[in-house]
Amino acid sequence: MHAISEAAAKPVTRLDFRAAPKDYRHWSIRIDGPVARLIMAVDEDSPAADGYELKLNSYDVGVDIELYDAVQRLRFEHPEVRTVVITSGIDGMFCAGANIRMLGISSHSHKVNFCKFTNETRNSIEDASYRSGQTYMAALNGTAAGGGYELALATEYLMLVDDGNAAVSLPEVPLLAVLPGTGGLTRVVDKRKVRRDLADVFCTVEEGMKGQRAVEWRLLDEMVPRSKFEERVTEKALELAALSDRPEEETGIQLDHLERSEEENEIRYPFVTVTLDRDGRNATLDIQGPDSEAPGDAEAVKELGVSFWPLAVIRAIDDALLHLRFNEPMLGTLIIKTSGDGNRVAAYDALLNENRDNWLVREILLYIQRTYKRLDVTSRTTFAFVEPGSCFVGMLADLLFAVDRSYMLDGQLDDRSAPTICLTELNFGALRMSNGLTRLETRFLGDSASLENAQELVSQDLDAQAALDAGLITYAPDDIDWEDEIRLLLEERASFSPDALTGMEANLRFAGPETLETKIFGRLSAWQNWIFQRPNAAGESGALKLYGTGKRAKYDRGRV
Amino acid sequence: MHAISEAAAKPVTRLDFRAAPKDYRHWSIRIDGPVARLIMAVDEDSPAADGYELKLNSYDVGVDIELYDAVQRLRFEHPEVRTVVITSGIDGMFCAGANIRMLGISSHSHKVNFCKFTNETRNSIEDASYRSGQTYMAALNGTAAGGGYELALATEYLMLVDDGNAAVSLPEVPLLAVLPGTGGLTRVVDKRKVRRDLADVFCTVEEGMKGQRAVEWRLLDEMVPRSKFEERVTEKALELAALSDRPEEETGIQLDHLERSEEENEIRYPFVTVTLDRDGRNATLDIQGPDSEAPGDAEAVKELGVSFWPLAVIRAIDDALLHLRFNEPMLGTLIIKTSGDGNRVAAYDALLNENRDNWLVREILLYIQRTYKRLDVTSRTTFAFVEPGSCFVGMLADLLFAVDRSYMLDGQLDDRSAPTICLTELNFGALRMSNGLTRLETRFLGDSASLENAQELVSQDLDAQAALDAGLITYAPDDIDWEDEIRLLLEERASFSPDALTGMEANLRFAGPETLETKIFGRLSAWQNWIFQRPNAAGESGALKLYGTGKRAKYDRGRV
Repeated sequence: MHAISEAAAKPVTRLDFRAAPKDYRHWSIRIDGPVARLIMAVDEDSPAADGYELKLNSYDVGVDIELYDAVQRLRFEHPEVRTVVITSGIDGMFCAGANIRMLGISSHSHKVNFCKFTNETRNSIEDASYRSGQTYMAALNGTAAGGGYELALATEYLMLVDDGNAAVSLPEVPLLAVLPGTGGLTRVVDKRKVRRDLADVFCTVEEGMKGQRAVEWRLLDEMVPRSKFEERVTEKALELAALSDRPEEETGIQLDHLERSEEENEIRYPFVTVTLDRDGRNATLDIQGPDSEAPGDAEAVKELGVSFWPLAVIRAIDDALLHLRFNEPMLGTLIIKTSGDGNRVAAYDALLNENRDNWLVREILLYIQRTYKRLDVTSRTTFAFVEPGSCFVGMLADLLFAVDRSYMLDGQLDDRSAPTICLTELNFGALRMSNGLTRLETRFLGDSASLENAQELVSQDLDAQAALDAGLITYAPDDIDWEDEIRLLLEERASFSPDALTGMEANLRFAGPETLETKIFGRLSAWQNWIFQRPNAAGESGALKLYGTGKRAKYDRGRV
Repeated sequence: MHAISEAAAKPVTRLDFRAAPKDYRHWSIRIDGPVARLIMAVDEDSPAADGYELKLNSYDVGVDIELYDAVQRLRFEHPEVRTVVITSGIDGMFCAGANIRMLGISSHSHKVNFCKFTNETRNSIEDASYRSGQTYMAALNGTAAGGGYELALATEYLMLVDDGNAAVSLPEVPLLAVLPGTGGLTRVVDKRKVRRDLADVFCTVEEGMKGQRAVEWRLLDEMVPRSKFEERVTEKALELAALSDRPEEETGIQLDHLERSEEENEIRYPFVTVTLDRDGRNATLDIQGPDSEAPGDAEAVKELGVSFWPLAVIRAIDDALLHLRFNEPMLGTLIIKTSGDGNRVAAYDALLNENRDNWLVREILLYIQRTYKRLDVTSRTTFAFVEPGSCFVGMLADLLFAVDRSYMLDGQLDDRSAPTICLTELNFGALRMSNGLTRLETRFLGDSASLENAQELVSQDLDAQAALDAGLITYAPDDIDWEDEIRLLLEERASFSPDALTGMEANLRFAGPETLETKIFGRLSAWQNWIFQRPNAAGESGALKLYGTGKRAKYDRGRV
């Protein structure tokens, strides 16, 4: 007898990751020249699922979907914005963190996916600050607790109002028996470099800290009296804005509503079709190449806006990954295919590469980079199948190095030519993993000869044997074996324990150096996932379940 | 109503970590000039606990206790040994890995502790190879499966007999729904730099790999025909031996049986007393300073052998940590105290520092380093209390930077002088954490001024205020507050969820760079701990439980 799947048994509301400012319930954006204010005022009556209220600017995935959308829009729609100030629209409370009642009633699967998505959004905030000339700062006009302080930690400057009440805190351990799992522990010691014993103190003080001591401990950059708060925020925001390299006299592009049509087993976007095989427990992303020639320059890119092929493709992949993670947990394997004209892809690739210093092209490249990172940390097996008619070139070829394994047909299946793949300059620097390396550098760790060889193959159409010899694909079955091999591969993978695969893939995908990001996804999230399974947190007498009931959690005191 | 503690409910046999070759049941050591052979022939009828047989050279913690002892003895007792060949005494089977039945019936707590200890022993093998001139190689005269291959991966050269049968494998994911959690996943991609897609293939092939393909994939260094196996092993061992810097004409010291006397709430070693406070759920390690003046040179150190104070102290701490981890899971907080003459400690410290190139002193320093690393990854809260009569100097002062927090009395409690602490050169290089940094470098990450300041304080006796100003301690309560503050601290810590503390401490202790070791303890072990909690592995229908019963595991197919 087999227990019903946890994921299947507790469906959360089906989530839609598309958002638009006109429909925001929880955030608003106010732009004043080079400074944008991103204002959190959570509507407590609009949770993403039933069973809880979003009090005190606490958040759930619905709040974070809007935040992610806002971060994206500020980058693409507002080249003039150089500083983004995150602040609160609720007096005295910046943000109380993730909603505890929501965590208490959510499935393990939802908690893990929720934490991952919020982590990715906070990383995207840092990505804007570090690589896009759009620096975030936190104007904490009230208490920032738990995930609220973690959100602030993702910005580059933390200012707290000095009103005698407002504090910053990470009360998860003492109050909830879980971790500050949205990067908090890592950012405290690794980004802000709070001394580890002081960090230990801070993370066990429920009420948190404020005042000069919090500044001395590096938990904050500045305490500001309430009377001078707005003035000082603006002053600091302008100071940060002056350091930006964003263009002076540019207009942005509109991130129009992403088109998507859904049937039971198929989702269609412009240039991406997702096919769901529920019996085989896999999903195939077919990425279609450009339907027109590449435009001539960056100005033409801007005119095309979201219909510019690379941007259209990456928006669709981004949405598809989030949709599959949250709404289709039973589909354990993601298959990447491409179809289209490789020469056209190469031309778009060249355009991106040549104009990489243009602000908009930079944004598009960074968006591709972030989305591929999202694929890297997606807890699904990922395969790429290179078949006739495919166009794994440049930015699409990088997907061959993102997946767990790639299979390329050696020969023909019908009258179409045997498939080829092709590297471009984009595979050698523009698209980095969270470990700081390109996917080829990670692939050829400790094998510089293969890396140099790959560099020499740029612009060459490589057939299966050449790709295999260069170490660019995993296997190259011939036409006789192809179908059987693919079928057996998918059946075998679907037979394994999903948890063991998740752990294995998380360990094999990130060889090489570690960064703040890999530490968050590798170390912190893994510990948080473990704790989310432990009775002390998630059991019927655990702290997450009992929070707010007036009952005290009961702990198994054995140390593991 | 509160469930009985898992740890308390399922006591494993009380473990004794002291071992001696004359009592080995599973290993033997054969020494031939510069080459030692460490031969595994597990006695299947001598498991460490009831309920399983150690078939096919599979291991449990008892087997690993002997291995750890052997690794230690080879370093200290055999300066002449420059290469250690790990091999099997059972024909056709090198090692089948951790005993699966044992894993199936063990508590979560035991599994986690067992994996940690086996990981530490494998790290100590690499420590010998990298820092002690005693290089390990694996002569795989039969199949190395799972933990067996992981053991081989901890050596620097892997030779497999080419007999058509013997293979190397990591079948954990397909067979058991857990990870190769003893460093296997990390060492495959990060140490041996197997390409990640090939690693993915290898880790899902139950029967493993052999032959030239395994060499090409870097899973092995060499395949050797059975007829030439012994000859080639010796040849390679001598080749590695020739690279060693170990002394030519030296004799070792004997690691005599460690004295230990136990009462219900006290354990006494030479120079270390452990007091167990079961109501308060903590244990205090009181480390006593030297009872005699430091000897004059390295030759005198050798004559003293295990009674040389630093060695005696570190052997006791090592044993105490292992004992507390496995046998006292309910004691969640470890308190470090010292007592004795700080000037004497300083003299021993100076002796160690001046003779650090001597092979034996080097071994002692490396042993201190390894033991402090064991403290770093011990999942207990660690505090240090600096009281009158203490001797936190040099190597003992480093413990102040290893613990989660330190408290130093500012003033006197009785007629004894106010306590002082003192840094020595040993705090600035000899004792590195697994992240490659000294504990002071980690403490002052991004604060080079404080690090330089600490360097200038070497050899100065620092009172509480001076230590606090220099950032070397966390708090300095005065005599009026001392007792209350310590009492409240311990009560508060004991009130928190043990799991949340474990996760928090694991994240705060390792700021800065990552290494193979930190990846194993941070990323790999955390994922393994998570999977060990998951029903797909550890549930009644999970793969670990059902292995060997003929029944097939049933998996929840939802991906998390």
